[in-house]
Amino acid sequence: MCELLAMSANVPTDICFSFTGLRRRGGETGPHRDGFGICFYEHGGLREFKDYQPSCQSPIAEFLQSYPIRSRTIISHIRQANVGEVNLQNTHPFQRELWGKAWTFAHNGQMPIEQIPQPKHYQPIGTTDSEKIFCWLLSELREQYQTKASIVEVSSKLLDMCNTLNTLGVSNILLTDGDDIFAFCSTKLSWIVRKAPFGKAHLCDRDVTIDFSAVAKDTDIAIMVATEPLTDNEQWFAMKSGEGRMFRNGECVWSDFGPEVIHKKREHCCN
Amino acid sequence: MCELLAMSANVPTDICFSFTGLRRRGGETGPHRDGFGICFYEHGGLREFKDYQPSCQSPIAEFLQSYPIRSRTIISHIRQANVGEVNLQNTHPFQRELWGKAWTFAHNGQMPIEQIPQPKHYQPIGTTDSEKIFCWLLSELREQYQTKASIVEVSSKLLDMCNTLNTLGVSNILLTDGDDIFAFCSTKLSWIVRKAPFGKAHLCDRDVTIDFSAVAKDTDIAIMVATEPLTDNEQWFAMKSGEGRMFRNGECVWSDFGPEVIHKKREHCCN
Repeated sequence: MCELLAMSANVPTDICFSFTGLRRRGGETGPHRDGFGICFYEHGGLREFKDYQPSCQSPIAEFLQSYPIRSRTIISHIRQANVGEVNLQNTHPFQRELWGKAWTFAHNGQMPIEQIPQPKHYQPIGTTDSEKIFCWLLSELREQYQTKASIVEVSSKLLDMCNTLNTLGVSNILLTDGDDIFAFCSTKLSWIVRKAPFGKAHLCDRDVTIDFSAVAKDTDIAIMVATEPLTDNEQWFAMKSGEGRMFRNGECVWSDFGPEVIHKKREHCCN
Repeated sequence: MCELLAMSANVPTDICFSFTGLRRRGGETGPHRDGFGICFYEHGGLREFKDYQPSCQSPIAEFLQSYPIRSRTIISHIRQANVGEVNLQNTHPFQRELWGKAWTFAHNGQMPIEQIPQPKHYQPIGTTDSEKIFCWLLSELREQYQTKASIVEVSSKLLDMCNTLNTLGVSNILLTDGDDIFAFCSTKLSWIVRKAPFGKAHLCDRDVTIDFSAVAKDTDIAIMVATEPLTDNEQWFAMKSGEGRMFRNGECVWSDFGPEVIHKKREHCCN
C-alpha cells in the first residue's frame, strides 16, 4: 500500500511533525521506497516538491522536514510502485488546472487501467492508473459544470464517480483545488481533528512527541487525513469503504456513505 | 526587467553554476525580489521549485544552489512584479498539460492584459498577463493540432503568435514541453553553446569561476538561454527582436527571424 496524507486547516499551519512520521514510512518503517510528493497551497498558488528517491533518504524530504512551509491545504503521497515505472512522471500528487484553479490528486489503489473510462479533456503524462483516474474525474467535472458548483453538487458527483471506480478495484483518493479536500475511502483512510484543548501527540513511526498546546492557538483547527493513523495516542476516525468527505478550513463540510464494496486483500496495490 | 534562464543539454546536466549567478540577481546584484521558480524535466516528468521570497534569500534557492539536480531541459525565472501581486500563483514558470506532456512557460515583458486574446482551453490561475499569454499559446496549439506536430510546424505557429504579441507590448518568452525549448526575443534574450573544447567561465554576478573541462565530457553539449549573459568571459549571442529559436538536446534545431518591432524602453516590464 502507498500512503496518503492531507491537511485542511483554518490558518496556515506547517506539517513538519506529521511529515516526519510519514517520511520514515518511505523506506524505513514502511516499504514505500518509490518516491514521494507533497503540495502546499498558499495564496491560491501551489508549491510542489517531488522526488523519485525514497522519502527516508531524499535530500528534498530532509529539507522539507526542517523547513516549515505554512499552508491551509496540503496533500502528500509516498509511493510503492505497482503499475508504472519509478520516475517523476509517475510520482503523485498529479496536477491539472480546472476552472482557473490548480487541482492536485493523490491515490492509493490499483485497478485494470483499461477499465478506467477514457478522459475527454485531460491526458495522462505518465503510465499509472492513478493519473488516468485523476484525468477522468476532472474531465467529468469539467464536462458537467462550466464553473465551480456548490460543495454539495461537486462532492456528490465525485462520490458517485469514486464509487464507480470502487467496483473496479481499490481506489483510495485525495483530491483538492486548494480550498476543499475531497477524501474517498475504498479500503483504508483515517482522519482526525486537532483543536483546543490541545494535548501531546506521539508519532507511531519515530519516538517524537509534540505538545500542540505550546505551538497552537486556541482558535486553530486542523484536520489530518492519512492512510494509517500517524500517532498512537490520539483518536483517529477510520472511514468506511464507499465513504466520501469534503474538508475545508479545518472542518468536515460534507460527508456521505456510499455502498460498501468488499475488496480482496492485495499485497501491492498502489502507484 | 525580470530574468529568464533555460538550459537544453544532450545529457542530464546540473545548472548549479548558472543558477548561482541568476540567484544573486534576485535581490542582490539585480532588483528581481519578487520570487523565483525553476523547473527540471527528468524522464518525461517534471520537478518544480517556487518561492515568493527573493531568490537571494530563499531557503529553497539556497538548497537548489548546492543540490545538483541533473536534467536535459530546465527553465527558470526570477520576478520583478508589475502586474499581479507577489504570491505563488503569479510566480513563473507556469505549468499546463497538452498532448500528454507537462508544458512550462516563463515570460519577461508587459502588455495590456485585455488585449491578449482570450484562451479557449486553459484558464489563468493568477492575475498576470504572462499566464494569460501562456494559456492562449497552448489553447491555440491545442486547437490547431490534435497531437504534437513537427518541430517546424509548431515552431512556425509559435513564432507567428509571439510576433502578434510583440506588436502589443514587450514579450520575451521561454516555453517547453520538456524536450524542446522555444525561445522568443522581443527585446532581450541571449544564448550560448557550451561544448568541447571546454574552458573556464566566470560569473558576472559573483566572483565564481568554473572549469568546464574538469567536469564535462568531450561529447557533452549544453545551450544556455538568458535575458542577460551570465558570464563575462564567454561568447553569448544576442537574439534580435522578433527572432524565434527551438532548442533540443543541446542543439538549435530551428530558427527564424520575424519582423523587428522597436519597443519603447520601460522601467518595470515584467511579471
